[in-house]
Amino acid sequence: MLLLIPGPVQTRPETRAALAQDIAPWDNDFRPTYASIRDRVRAIAGGQEGVHATLPLQGCGHFIMEAAIRTFIPAGGKLLIPQNGAYADRAVRLATECGRQVVALPGPDTRPVTGEEIDAALAADPAITHVAVVHHETGSGMVNDPEVIGPVVRARGRRLILDSVSAFGALPVDLSAHPEIDVVLFTSGKCLEGLPGIGFAVARIDSVTAAAGNAGSWSFDLLDVYEHAVRAGWGSFRFTPPVQALAAFGVALDLYAAEGGQPARLARYRENARILYDGVRGLGLTPYLEPRHQGPVIVTVHQPADPRFALQPFVDALKARGVLISNFYNTKVPTFRIGCVGAITPEQMRGAVAAIGGALDDLGVSRREAA
Amino acid sequence: MLLLIPGPVQTRPETRAALAQDIAPWDNDFRPTYASIRDRVRAIAGGQEGVHATLPLQGCGHFIMEAAIRTFIPAGGKLLIPQNGAYADRAVRLATECGRQVVALPGPDTRPVTGEEIDAALAADPAITHVAVVHHETGSGMVNDPEVIGPVVRARGRRLILDSVSAFGALPVDLSAHPEIDVVLFTSGKCLEGLPGIGFAVARIDSVTAAAGNAGSWSFDLLDVYEHAVRAGWGSFRFTPPVQALAAFGVALDLYAAEGGQPARLARYRENARILYDGVRGLGLTPYLEPRHQGPVIVTVHQPADPRFALQPFVDALKARGVLISNFYNTKVPTFRIGCVGAITPEQMRGAVAAIGGALDDLGVSRREAA
Repeated sequence: MLLLIPGPVQTRPETRAALAQDIAPWDNDFRPTYASIRDRVRAIAGGQEGVHATLPLQGCGHFIMEAAIRTFIPAGGKLLIPQNGAYADRAVRLATECGRQVVALPGPDTRPVTGEEIDAALAADPAITHVAVVHHETGSGMVNDPEVIGPVVRARGRRLILDSVSAFGALPVDLSAHPEIDVVLFTSGKCLEGLPGIGFAVARIDSVTAAAGNAGSWSFDLLDVYEHAVRAGWGSFRFTPPVQALAAFGVALDLYAAEGGQPARLARYRENARILYDGVRGLGLTPYLEPRHQGPVIVTVHQPADPRFALQPFVDALKARGVLISNFYNTKVPTFRIGCVGAITPEQMRGAVAAIGGALDDLGVSRREAA
Repeated sequence: MLLLIPGPVQTRPETRAALAQDIAPWDNDFRPTYASIRDRVRAIAGGQEGVHATLPLQGCGHFIMEAAIRTFIPAGGKLLIPQNGAYADRAVRLATECGRQVVALPGPDTRPVTGEEIDAALAADPAITHVAVVHHETGSGMVNDPEVIGPVVRARGRRLILDSVSAFGALPVDLSAHPEIDVVLFTSGKCLEGLPGIGFAVARIDSVTAAAGNAGSWSFDLLDVYEHAVRAGWGSFRFTPPVQALAAFGVALDLYAAEGGQPARLARYRENARILYDGVRGLGLTPYLEPRHQGPVIVTVHQPADPRFALQPFVDALKARGVLISNFYNTKVPTFRIGCVGAITPEQMRGAVAAIGGALDDLGVSRREAA
């Protein structure tokens, strides 16, 4: 079965094999593995030793996002969220429920937020201290570019929280070139091709240490994570982690380096996305995004107008052909989405396009009638 | 290597093997596994369909504890915590940092809290709505008995949150006989012998649905977990779980049932603990607890007074003999602790006692001088 979902992604057999062992997380033999993961992750983020620190948190992307919002923005503090996708909607809810004031900047989920829009919103409200941006929208496949947003945030003297959960490791992030970024967030089971279970923040140490008392939650206080992970030579994971996923993530990072790191990973995903995008168009289907806004992580496709199409039967037919895609969608109109990430080759992606065509045939959906 | 720690525990090979697969958490083929885990866990807790629900949360024991405190006690609400161990200390910190008022009931970590102590504390402060109790103290090995505490809490018309993270599955919990218990909490990697990564709450549905608006955190709102896991036939895990740990937990529950469930699991652990307790005494060492307060999960032992003893060298010497124990302790005086839980047989425990004696010899610690 080929998993074509935006995470947890298809992994390599070597990565999965590393799961099947019992490990004591604080064992001295495991600490070098953990320390090496922290160092390598910081490097991928363009971070510098002594300036940035890798802060891991057990759980999922929502948890590391809530931890970042709580840690960097005090209760009652105000943040701007460009709201142009399903994960931005979730960020608004997350921040609101934990008692921060959200200024939402609504936009269509078919194009990135612009620097001008961010600039105008910041100019209009000096009380906004932070901007929280979803780097890649897992609903639509669209990318908000930190190279566009970052300079505007910096020029306005505000801080940036970059939710790169579904993009980190593929789309470039260079913290050293972006001092306005307090933190970039991601998880183990996406573009770095590990297994799910661990969120990561790579944060500015000065920002973290200045955030004492903000979190209002011991569990989600990244300063406390910093104290355990980095300071005082302790170097331990705080609380019990899903340590098997951590061990496997170390293997996934080995494979990432062997592939050629971020440029090579991105090149493979872009090729996967291109094959898929062109392929579904060749089947008479309509991608959700214009080519210029299409990212390399997922391709979202309008559901065919043909009444013989229904999502779950289509997913089932595709699964019978060896390809598993999401059985839900996160856009306002009916779509389906296909992941381009994980241990998937362009050759396999060509096979997936053929399987999509076959699944449409299985349902009797006319390809010419496809909207 | 024999892992003798109070979690993540040594698992069976069949359980670990179930980790090494890619899984889409929302896949229809995985849902029956997930639904079955929820039903079986509720049954182990003595819960009833329609009255109690199993609510899983990715992460660790601290996370499910914070989620329970936030969900059942509103911000500013008041809870009593019998503070007789390291995990009770942590519960006090957790609850305080998330803005709840804690009334601590301090006690020595060498005996359980009594019903009289709880009763007096509740009588003295009518504003206390909840009591949060650590069932088994992972620092000392001591058990606070819900059969003693529960009736007192009920008689006073208050509610009980039972943190059974390191005991659930071994020490019995019968929710149907204890309507005062809002929720019992545990994790995947302890006495049910799964891998770490998932916390579980088994909660009264009426209490959860009455808790709307309390949490002040979307991530930690058990009502939202309930909506996803149980209501409306959705039956999905909320947010991405460490799904491999979930699959392995299903296998661990199969093995639990095959062993004979809670009574058989407890009997094996009690026998492990007895062998260990008597064994270390036979080596001239002094267990931390009196026999009548010694639980079946860990045996904590005073460090020998002999200056040739030091914890890390002892742990290393024991590891060289194939037994891994914790390299830290959670009591106020220096101790070491040895887990009795996990996929460990009494025969292996006898071998561990011999290895402890050998490790003391390796360090040149006189057994007669041991305090």
